[in-house]
Amino acid sequence: MSIAVVNEIKSLREIVKNYRKEGKTIALVPTMGCLHEGHKSLMQKAHSIADVTIISVFVNPIQFCPGEDYDKYPRTLDADKIVAESAGVDVIFAPSVNEMYPGLQKFSDLTMVVPPYELTDIMCGKSRVGHFDGVETVVSKLFNIVQPDFACFGMKDIQQLFLIKKMVRDLNFPVEIIPCPLVREESGLALSSRNKYLSDSDKQIALSISKAIFAIRDLYRAGVTDTKKLFDAGLTNLHKNVELEYLEFVDENTFKPVDVVKSNTICAIAARVGNVRLIDNIVLEV
Amino acid sequence: MSIAVVNEIKSLREIVKNYRKEGKTIALVPTMGCLHEGHKSLMQKAHSIADVTIISVFVNPIQFCPGEDYDKYPRTLDADKIVAESAGVDVIFAPSVNEMYPGLQKFSDLTMVVPPYELTDIMCGKSRVGHFDGVETVVSKLFNIVQPDFACFGMKDIQQLFLIKKMVRDLNFPVEIIPCPLVREESGLALSSRNKYLSDSDKQIALSISKAIFAIRDLYRAGVTDTKKLFDAGLTNLHKNVELEYLEFVDENTFKPVDVVKSNTICAIAARVGNVRLIDNIVLEV
Repeated sequence: MSIAVVNEIKSLREIVKNYRKEGKTIALVPTMGCLHEGHKSLMQKAHSIADVTIISVFVNPIQFCPGEDYDKYPRTLDADKIVAESAGVDVIFAPSVNEMYPGLQKFSDLTMVVPPYELTDIMCGKSRVGHFDGVETVVSKLFNIVQPDFACFGMKDIQQLFLIKKMVRDLNFPVEIIPCPLVREESGLALSSRNKYLSDSDKQIALSISKAIFAIRDLYRAGVTDTKKLFDAGLTNLHKNVELEYLEFVDENTFKPVDVVKSNTICAIAARVGNVRLIDNIVLEV
Repeated sequence: MSIAVVNEIKSLREIVKNYRKEGKTIALVPTMGCLHEGHKSLMQKAHSIADVTIISVFVNPIQFCPGEDYDKYPRTLDADKIVAESAGVDVIFAPSVNEMYPGLQKFSDLTMVVPPYELTDIMCGKSRVGHFDGVETVVSKLFNIVQPDFACFGMKDIQQLFLIKKMVRDLNFPVEIIPCPLVREESGLALSSRNKYLSDSDKQIALSISKAIFAIRDLYRAGVTDTKKLFDAGLTNLHKNVELEYLEFVDENTFKPVDVVKSNTICAIAARVGNVRLIDNIVLEV
């Protein structure tokens, strides 16, 4: 059976209802499309744990801030279908903006799901004001539409993963969140749909981001736990044309900054190469 | 079979799962307990439309503003059981605060469901800042825990009903909201758990609130559609010891104030008698 592409909420609900009648479990992978090997690993994970794998492909306008790349964000549904099918996906839910936000005139007219301010006024949330409100709102909608047993999220978006897990706990969503490892190119560069924006020379510059991450990991493995020293080691590895947004060391359970690496401290970085904003992270395991 | 009282989310999910296996539909009535005839009408409605009726009895701390009556809000679970059983309720979900908000230290640590500012900076939301955030958050939690087919809400809390209906639309909750008519004492006073706080003399004063509402309705029926004139008619009927908070005429579809009564304009009032805050409303039908 070839993969189904569904554009309407009502049709998707019918399909889900039929799967339920057959007693099948469902895993959801929310995406914005432009699928790469990172997404593929999420879809394969979903396929391995549930009877049915549904992905959403939706470039969600309310999670883009003013001046961000909403309009030019790559939309590649035909290619996405091929990647999804090869990963064992059963259904692609690809709604229009009007299907998800009917008649919307301004974002502030919407009921929103909002994470705690203290957890969004750091790292990616600090520069992308309102971004995580948009993410949690659309993910809530997808959870309510699909009612999946499992939902797979990548550890590349580590702050998003943390906030989604908290949202599920706080709001009692009946879904199990499955964290999936970050996937890298052979060069070390973390996979991202935004890598498409990088010229060859910018890509070389961008490589210094993962190099910085690995340098921190190696120094930590060599016994350094002072995050100030680890920070400096990261910084010296960054190419001079990388504009650093943040390089943070946070506790995996609270996302509060730590001075000394503890069990599973997360080291996360965001930086710009030209106009392209990239993120990366690593868990410093004890 | 006597009514079941369940305190734990996990146990309730098990019960719901079994009902689902039997193919039964579920209606939910969220309450803060202290059940009166108004609640009873909601429960009877629920009982009439679904196979199983579940009510929640939970005085939700996060919907009370500082200085409000959270601590002294009446808690009468034994009496509530009798009322609920007589109305055909199958299960009472009565969780502790720690069950609903485990380990909570401050409200701002929670993921919240937040209605649009423009719809909460009016009427009850204007004086009760954050109240509807608390309501939508707890109702979202209850929807996710119970996953009901229907949820019954009273038209007495007309702004709450409006916002919950919008929340369900905006976030695609798979539940049908059933609005239920406001219930009055024979005297005209709208039923409220807070009526318990009224002394006999205050109750006489409070009666002028529904009198004002009825005076407006009668004048409207006599052909007056100018909301300024209707407002004045309401005002002259209020006892001098009633402290008016608002008397608003709003469109049923947008909740924006109207100058001239249109199809199904809502006339809503909030006022204090002594320390007791009371609300009432009427739909001015065309």
